[in-house]
Amino acid sequence: MNASDESLMSSSNAAQREGRADGDRSLEGRLLERMLARLGNPAVEFNLWTGERIAPAGVEPVCRVRISSRTTLLAILADPAVRFPDAYCDGRVEIEGDLVRLLESVYLAGERAPAASPLGRLVGRLRRPHVNTFAGSRANIHHHYDISNAFYELWLGQTMAYTCAYYPTVETSLDQAQIAKMHHVCRKMRLRAGEHVVEAGCGWGALALHMARHYGVKVRAFNISKEQVAYARERAEREGLAGQVEYVQDDYRNICGRYDAFVSVGMLEHVGVDNYEGLGAVVARSLGENGRGLIHSIGRNYPAPMQPWIEKRIFPGACPPSLAQMSRIFEPHNLSILDVENLRLHYAQTLRHWMELFELAGERVQQMFDAKFVRMWRMYLAGSIAAFTTGTLQLFQVVFATAHNNEVARTRAHLYVP
Amino acid sequence: MNASDESLMSSSNAAQREGRADGDRSLEGRLLERMLARLGNPAVEFNLWTGERIAPAGVEPVCRVRISSRTTLLAILADPAVRFPDAYCDGRVEIEGDLVRLLESVYLAGERAPAASPLGRLVGRLRRPHVNTFAGSRANIHHHYDISNAFYELWLGQTMAYTCAYYPTVETSLDQAQIAKMHHVCRKMRLRAGEHVVEAGCGWGALALHMARHYGVKVRAFNISKEQVAYARERAEREGLAGQVEYVQDDYRNICGRYDAFVSVGMLEHVGVDNYEGLGAVVARSLGENGRGLIHSIGRNYPAPMQPWIEKRIFPGACPPSLAQMSRIFEPHNLSILDVENLRLHYAQTLRHWMELFELAGERVQQMFDAKFVRMWRMYLAGSIAAFTTGTLQLFQVVFATAHNNEVARTRAHLYVP
Repeated sequence: MNASDESLMSSSNAAQREGRADGDRSLEGRLLERMLARLGNPAVEFNLWTGERIAPAGVEPVCRVRISSRTTLLAILADPAVRFPDAYCDGRVEIEGDLVRLLESVYLAGERAPAASPLGRLVGRLRRPHVNTFAGSRANIHHHYDISNAFYELWLGQTMAYTCAYYPTVETSLDQAQIAKMHHVCRKMRLRAGEHVVEAGCGWGALALHMARHYGVKVRAFNISKEQVAYARERAEREGLAGQVEYVQDDYRNICGRYDAFVSVGMLEHVGVDNYEGLGAVVARSLGENGRGLIHSIGRNYPAPMQPWIEKRIFPGACPPSLAQMSRIFEPHNLSILDVENLRLHYAQTLRHWMELFELAGERVQQMFDAKFVRMWRMYLAGSIAAFTTGTLQLFQVVFATAHNNEVARTRAHLYVP
Repeated sequence: MNASDESLMSSSNAAQREGRADGDRSLEGRLLERMLARLGNPAVEFNLWTGERIAPAGVEPVCRVRISSRTTLLAILADPAVRFPDAYCDGRVEIEGDLVRLLESVYLAGERAPAASPLGRLVGRLRRPHVNTFAGSRANIHHHYDISNAFYELWLGQTMAYTCAYYPTVETSLDQAQIAKMHHVCRKMRLRAGEHVVEAGCGWGALALHMARHYGVKVRAFNISKEQVAYARERAEREGLAGQVEYVQDDYRNICGRYDAFVSVGMLEHVGVDNYEGLGAVVARSLGENGRGLIHSIGRNYPAPMQPWIEKRIFPGACPPSLAQMSRIFEPHNLSILDVENLRLHYAQTLRHWMELFELAGERVQQMFDAKFVRMWRMYLAGSIAAFTTGTLQLFQVVFATAHNNEVARTRAHLYVP
């Protein structure tokens, strides 16, 4: 069940693989076969620097992986979940075929994988995910979000919303879907003109502006990313909404004041499960007796750590929660969960749209950074698509209210009025 | 936060109550005031057999309670959550005013109540809720559901659905709302003609018949209540649906076979949290690789035992779960939660409709049973209304699917097509 540590590369029984008989395999080939077995035998063919070919038994491989040297293979054997994507980024591994299908095969195989090897368990225990103290969170967020606004402008679309979009139909474009997502969020909260909203983790500011413009509310929006806050403030000025939207460069834990609604889209992944009860305390004190809100987050079907390469290279300190873990925000504070919607397949589609734009901008990205960065980002986007299409990750939108709030919507029909 | 043990009667600081000065209070009056303080000071006036009057300070009482004797008061002081409703049923306590408002006041007061007294904690520890072994479940279900089909026909309406209805508008009648609920459930599961559905806990059979008639599916419906199954089978025969619907008088734990969808409306309350992982195993083996389902249950904002009088007199073995507790059905089996809808206020409305019909049939109920039964049922229905209006109880409809099921609905708009 729990793919956790050994995926991205999740496994092959030697006897199940075709090619040379066991006696003809090189030592390296046998070690690779053993690792693939532990990872549940993904439908992937491997070609070694020696010309040796290790193909899955009885299934057509979705992809071919070339490993360039013994050193590279040994690193992958020691810690496939981190070292395989690292080797791809460095060009020490080449992939022929569809990267998304490779990673889907790895995730699906991971579910039928046997327990990790002793080495795998040791490597897992030695991992130390980044922590989300105040300073830790600043460093973790800086790592990902402050690299360059211009870079993100290349592939996030017009809204610069860096979270799961909402596709009412299969024809919906990325920009339309991001706008539809913001309306969906606002309708779920039933915002009314003149109300006060607090937003925790506002990215480049799109949702706050949308709420102010279309729903007539006043917004205080918190974010610890300096680059994002600067961008969002300029945008609010330019769009004439600076009087309605205040961007605060500060940690969500420092939110104070009383609001009608609390919203957070795509921040919870960075909060850390240990801090959920504290986040709930912030929500409860922000809403007082009669409020409501929405939290939108990547999630899981069951608790598991973040895929370790993603945690190490892309999103330090991040962890997508199960719904039971998310409940730790609400339960200690007697907040009622009103509505949960799982938008997993919408995130797969959003990521496909981002990846298309990213690949179109590949040359410019390489000029801004380097080839390794392009491959790293490609691995991250492709792995994320695969995680959502295979059900390894979920996307939960949770609407909640204070316990005695009887002014909540009786039905959800109002969300679907054209 | 946790009102649990000391509610139904949840509390009054002596100094906060008006009337005679502390020195003038009888011993009994002082003990009652102390108990009310521990229960958070509900807005209720008490009149003792001595004529002594104990009224809440600074608020208009919603109700007046007459306690008939010292023995009755001492029993209530020892265990208010059970002995107060018991005394009402026996006629040793009389209530002037609106019973629902009294119980709402008690529930709301319970939330601000200080910790239970040493006696209250002892009483709480001594409670032994009924267990849900196979035999225990049979006895527990028999206690409530097998008392008389004719009795339930008096107040459940045409459908004989004994679960929360769904009110698309405030004008919807009880029968319309029960039918709307069944359509809502079927639409959420996206049933298609020819599919096979298994139902765990089918009551008097209404949903199974509805699914067969309107959605063209085949249903196997499980229930351990002998009276209900006999009633449901007769109904299927009468309505010409016996070829499509099979009622099985057996425990949900004995469900076998493979189905396209799993549905359970109003059974989970009787399952017991310790059995949720086992229920999830039944769901997972019923669905195989590519199924979906819906579980509808009374719930809570946070884990707490059933109100002890309800557990003792009305629903032995019952416990409404928090959403995190419900997740224990899904998480161990990699089932994806797709949609959660909280229908708390719909259950308050359903119960109001039931209570109206129940009161209209009061004389006939008294002839079938006795006056004590009428008062017991009134206390149960009024307490349930109060629990839902105050947010003490919730109603969760949870839609789920197997992890790799990518044929799930992308949006929920189809639920709201007129």
